[in-house]
Amino acid sequence: MRILILGGDGYCGWATALYLSERGHEVGIVDSLVRRYWDVTLGVETLTPIAPIKQRVERWKQLTGKEMDLYIGDITDYTFLESAIRRFAPDSIVHFGEQRSAPYSMIDREHAVMTQVNNVVGTLNLLYAMHDHCPDCHLVKLGTMGEYGTPNIDIEEGYITIQHNGREDRLPFPKQPGSFYHLSKVHDSHNIHFACRIWGIRATDLNQGVVYGVSTHETDRDEALVNRLDYDGVFGTALNRFCIQAAIGHPITVYGKGGQTRGFLDIRDTVRCVELAVLNPADRGEFRVFNQFTEQFSVLDLALMVQKAGAEMGLNVEVRHLENPRVEKEEHYFNAKNTQLRSLGLEPHCLSNSLLDSLLHFAIRYRDRVDEKQILPHVSWR
Amino acid sequence: MRILILGGDGYCGWATALYLSERGHEVGIVDSLVRRYWDVTLGVETLTPIAPIKQRVERWKQLTGKEMDLYIGDITDYTFLESAIRRFAPDSIVHFGEQRSAPYSMIDREHAVMTQVNNVVGTLNLLYAMHDHCPDCHLVKLGTMGEYGTPNIDIEEGYITIQHNGREDRLPFPKQPGSFYHLSKVHDSHNIHFACRIWGIRATDLNQGVVYGVSTHETDRDEALVNRLDYDGVFGTALNRFCIQAAIGHPITVYGKGGQTRGFLDIRDTVRCVELAVLNPADRGEFRVFNQFTEQFSVLDLALMVQKAGAEMGLNVEVRHLENPRVEKEEHYFNAKNTQLRSLGLEPHCLSNSLLDSLLHFAIRYRDRVDEKQILPHVSWR
Repeated sequence: MRILILGGDGYCGWATALYLSERGHEVGIVDSLVRRYWDVTLGVETLTPIAPIKQRVERWKQLTGKEMDLYIGDITDYTFLESAIRRFAPDSIVHFGEQRSAPYSMIDREHAVMTQVNNVVGTLNLLYAMHDHCPDCHLVKLGTMGEYGTPNIDIEEGYITIQHNGREDRLPFPKQPGSFYHLSKVHDSHNIHFACRIWGIRATDLNQGVVYGVSTHETDRDEALVNRLDYDGVFGTALNRFCIQAAIGHPITVYGKGGQTRGFLDIRDTVRCVELAVLNPADRGEFRVFNQFTEQFSVLDLALMVQKAGAEMGLNVEVRHLENPRVEKEEHYFNAKNTQLRSLGLEPHCLSNSLLDSLLHFAIRYRDRVDEKQILPHVSWR
Repeated sequence: MRILILGGDGYCGWATALYLSERGHEVGIVDSLVRRYWDVTLGVETLTPIAPIKQRVERWKQLTGKEMDLYIGDITDYTFLESAIRRFAPDSIVHFGEQRSAPYSMIDREHAVMTQVNNVVGTLNLLYAMHDHCPDCHLVKLGTMGEYGTPNIDIEEGYITIQHNGREDRLPFPKQPGSFYHLSKVHDSHNIHFACRIWGIRATDLNQGVVYGVSTHETDRDEALVNRLDYDGVFGTALNRFCIQAAIGHPITVYGKGGQTRGFLDIRDTVRCVELAVLNPADRGEFRVFNQFTEQFSVLDLALMVQKAGAEMGLNVEVRHLENPRVEKEEHYFNAKNTQLRSLGLEPHCLSNSLLDSLLHFAIRYRDRVDEKQILPHVSWR
């Protein structure tokens, strides 16, 4: 299969590109590299030193003989996007190419507007480019479990059958996203669903949970292939951040009570889920939604697990409850379905002591690179 | 009350501005006048010759002694919007300031992107400006009944209580909008709802049906106050278009079978509904949704009513079924609730022979201005 990966230089995108290339697919990467620039503007760096994209791709070729086409540009520029798609002629497009941080979108008005315009316009451009140039191609779009919010009922995969006043319909699951970033993904989902209806586009929306871990079989092969690992208050996500905090002796930062429960998955499952979606495309006109996570945890659960794993390694880990910078429920019902990827063959890497061990050791290895000033949250939802 | 009307030079906005001014409120108008420019670019004109905005406002002052402040500028320009809001210091902001045509949004990629960026950014800017400068102000936002699409269950007002697997929650009503324009309103609704939750903004989303009619008590007072009346395939809406078609001897253009059923209301009810929302503001943090229509009709119902009213005036009116340029169901269940505005005191002007008569006479009066080439739809959803 010919698979074009938008955002292929990012945390999930890079791991996915290597995995799919290793599995014998023809992989192309589209990336504007702006994620690296945002690090510069915020004055933060990934814990791991990541090689420039050309060096990454070159090293991969040296090691495996596999080439990946590289298209450096911005998908909000339609001329560029169109040209990349025409040249690569993909069977599937995997779309990670969005601003993906909730705190970043909440910094101020400019960041909120930029996030929504960037994500919505990039995705609209993609839909038009597919309609114009590869109408049979399958779009695999990264959404987020955060689109659903925390309703007091079970979260289904994209749709829910509603009985009401003696009638019934299967309708899009109601959305209650919790940041201007999460909102941008809801906007995308509605736009893509419409394009499937009117143009017969094939699409799979992967509502992904919080990803943890950094190593995949492929990224472990060479220092130049190492993936990014964010620990800062803007781009860092719960479990990865906690392990790095533990590794440097910083208290683990739990926002509020820590009862916030979310879906989580190992990055090794992210890459496999994308492959499963690609290998089993949606039908023409179908807008398919998979909830892409393997387990549910509360934030406090995770903090305590990291504390325990750290203790076994001789680290003295404190758990600290901070005033919650977000507006969200800290105690709530949460039960989300995730059966579709399992039924396609996903065999989850469940969160284990060995994963925590390896993540903690990874963090310890690079801990001299940590800038402690970047750890606490500086962006408030209010 | 001090009421700032965004889009106050448009079809609904102008009628609302005059009505609220007449009722003793202090009214300010914000408008970029870009709607007039879009007419120029499309080569179309309102059936009625409308005076320049400054002349309109001047004439209103001459007739009534009432002044309306005028702010000419674009709300996607935050510096301008902020300055207008600080200077006017509104108690309520009525937001009509969006690109509001479904066909316009479907012309091509550029128009789709422009519509979503224009509407979403304008509304985001407004939310930030209210948060920064008038957090207690009440936002009255024009949404559309088209946000709901045509589900096979009754359409509630914004929210629906769902029982699922033994649990229950009141959640946003699922949305299935039918154009990139309608999608932009869904995006707005989600963004506003979030701003209410995190910042305590007061907001009322008026999911308005298709508006018909042109005369209000105020616009009838002088030729210089006349409202716009669009009949072209891009900005014209069902009933108004049908009356103008009948008046010039053009067949009435029903798309497909004509079983498409929608909510409709008289423009005299639009202005009253806005007043009712303004006089009864939402609570702090409340995102309130009213369905703003008075009656449901199918498109074919309307065509036959216009045919009949025309016949009584001696017009020979043909009803023609065109191939549907839109992708939509032509036969479907449709039953939408609209009790909240009624319970606040709305007394509807139901569609009557006298309204059709007056609209037909109005159309006959200006029929020499019609450009027949603009009547058929040129924009296809496919």
